[in-house]
Amino acid sequence: MKKYKGYLIDLDGTMYLGKDPIDGAKEFVDGLHKKSIPYLFVTNNSSATQDKVSRKLNQFGIKSTPDNVITTSLATAKYIREKKPNARCYVIGEEGIMQALKNEGLTVADDEDCDFVIVGIDRQVTYEKFAKACLNVRNGAEFISTNSDVSIPTERGMLPGNGSLTSVVSVSTGVDPVFIGKPESVIMEEALEMIGLSREEALMVGDNYLTDIQAGINAQIDTLMVFTGVTPFEKLEGLPEPPTYYVHNLKEWMDNI
Amino acid sequence: MKKYKGYLIDLDGTMYLGKDPIDGAKEFVDGLHKKSIPYLFVTNNSSATQDKVSRKLNQFGIKSTPDNVITTSLATAKYIREKKPNARCYVIGEEGIMQALKNEGLTVADDEDCDFVIVGIDRQVTYEKFAKACLNVRNGAEFISTNSDVSIPTERGMLPGNGSLTSVVSVSTGVDPVFIGKPESVIMEEALEMIGLSREEALMVGDNYLTDIQAGINAQIDTLMVFTGVTPFEKLEGLPEPPTYYVHNLKEWMDNI
Repeated sequence: MKKYKGYLIDLDGTMYLGKDPIDGAKEFVDGLHKKSIPYLFVTNNSSATQDKVSRKLNQFGIKSTPDNVITTSLATAKYIREKKPNARCYVIGEEGIMQALKNEGLTVADDEDCDFVIVGIDRQVTYEKFAKACLNVRNGAEFISTNSDVSIPTERGMLPGNGSLTSVVSVSTGVDPVFIGKPESVIMEEALEMIGLSREEALMVGDNYLTDIQAGINAQIDTLMVFTGVTPFEKLEGLPEPPTYYVHNLKEWMDNI
Repeated sequence: MKKYKGYLIDLDGTMYLGKDPIDGAKEFVDGLHKKSIPYLFVTNNSSATQDKVSRKLNQFGIKSTPDNVITTSLATAKYIREKKPNARCYVIGEEGIMQALKNEGLTVADDEDCDFVIVGIDRQVTYEKFAKACLNVRNGAEFISTNSDVSIPTERGMLPGNGSLTSVVSVSTGVDPVFIGKPESVIMEEALEMIGLSREEALMVGDNYLTDIQAGINAQIDTLMVFTGVTPFEKLEGLPEPPTYYVHNLKEWMDNI
């Protein structure tokens, strides 16, 4: 069995389920830590900061520092900075994306003449924000969306996700955004750069076939699927392209670290 | 030339352009009035009331009373009342739709257990409104959208239209709405009922091929296209199905009334 030099790891459904820990997750990360194998948590959540995500993991006893986390916000900010270091950005989004853009030296502006329009989940979104985003895109701003998740599981039920907010701008302008998050490759490329590994050296671990595993496949990174979250074992046979490996609990993987 | 017993007439681009009158519109309506030919203005605007629309026409010297107007809000309310007379409705929308629903005896509610979800243009829309709409649709409410227009022309430029707001709910839930407005047939059927004519007796007049003329075609009502608005004369040849008749100015039609 190939030994991987580093791990990219999904959060919800892989490390925890909402507010509950997932059995085996802590032990798995402890195992990586003990053997000094680097790991990076990869999340499509654009509203949280690296710090917040890391602290949540710590509450479950999972070893992490803010540097062990890449959010779609961080990947978005890095992606934009690489394209245009002093870019002016019109943003629909919450704290995570605002902070990530500013940390990368980018300007968050409120006018209709920006270089980029970025849409992330925003529970304070208004018609005026959508209007300004549309005007910017029509004026030629590059249109970026942190992730395409159409809904978010909450205690109230499935609420609108960023992919559905993004559709206001794409449907109105006729311009499709560049999506940064899983299953797109952008966040995976940024993750590899952050962890300092080539695609052959890393393994992507996750529970959701349509985001985590597809992201690995799209970025040509081997994948380990775990059935503790969204995609059940019963669906394995019907998958268009199977994961490289699968386990029912991450404890089963310990010998392969 | 066939004489029609009644006219269904579009507003923006046919009677006026934003705040400006269109040459020939007043004379055309005067001609109908003089010969006692009934007419009904058909608009995809869901935010205005019949009264408001009629007063705007009067300002341009065009003869109209509120009864001469059918909005998507009115058509939506009539459509729902026919399906379920005492329906409870969760509404994203402005004054026009709220008033139309109440006038038809329907209940506008704020919970997550409604019979219908109705999305109309709402410039005070919030994430919470989208969330409740999604929860209602997931709970089995019938999903209705007043119209599919993806953008609205304004002095600031093209802003998000109801079709783009509607997409938040359809993309998030995976449920497509019933659209009421042009080019769908629902508003045309309600218009025929309101004016008391069969489809063979009426003529649909409008400037926009994709909404007005398509609405006529979809509802099997003859169409008169006028090139004073959205669709230019140059596009006529390439249209998949031509209008029944066309003129450059509605004055040219006076002899056919």
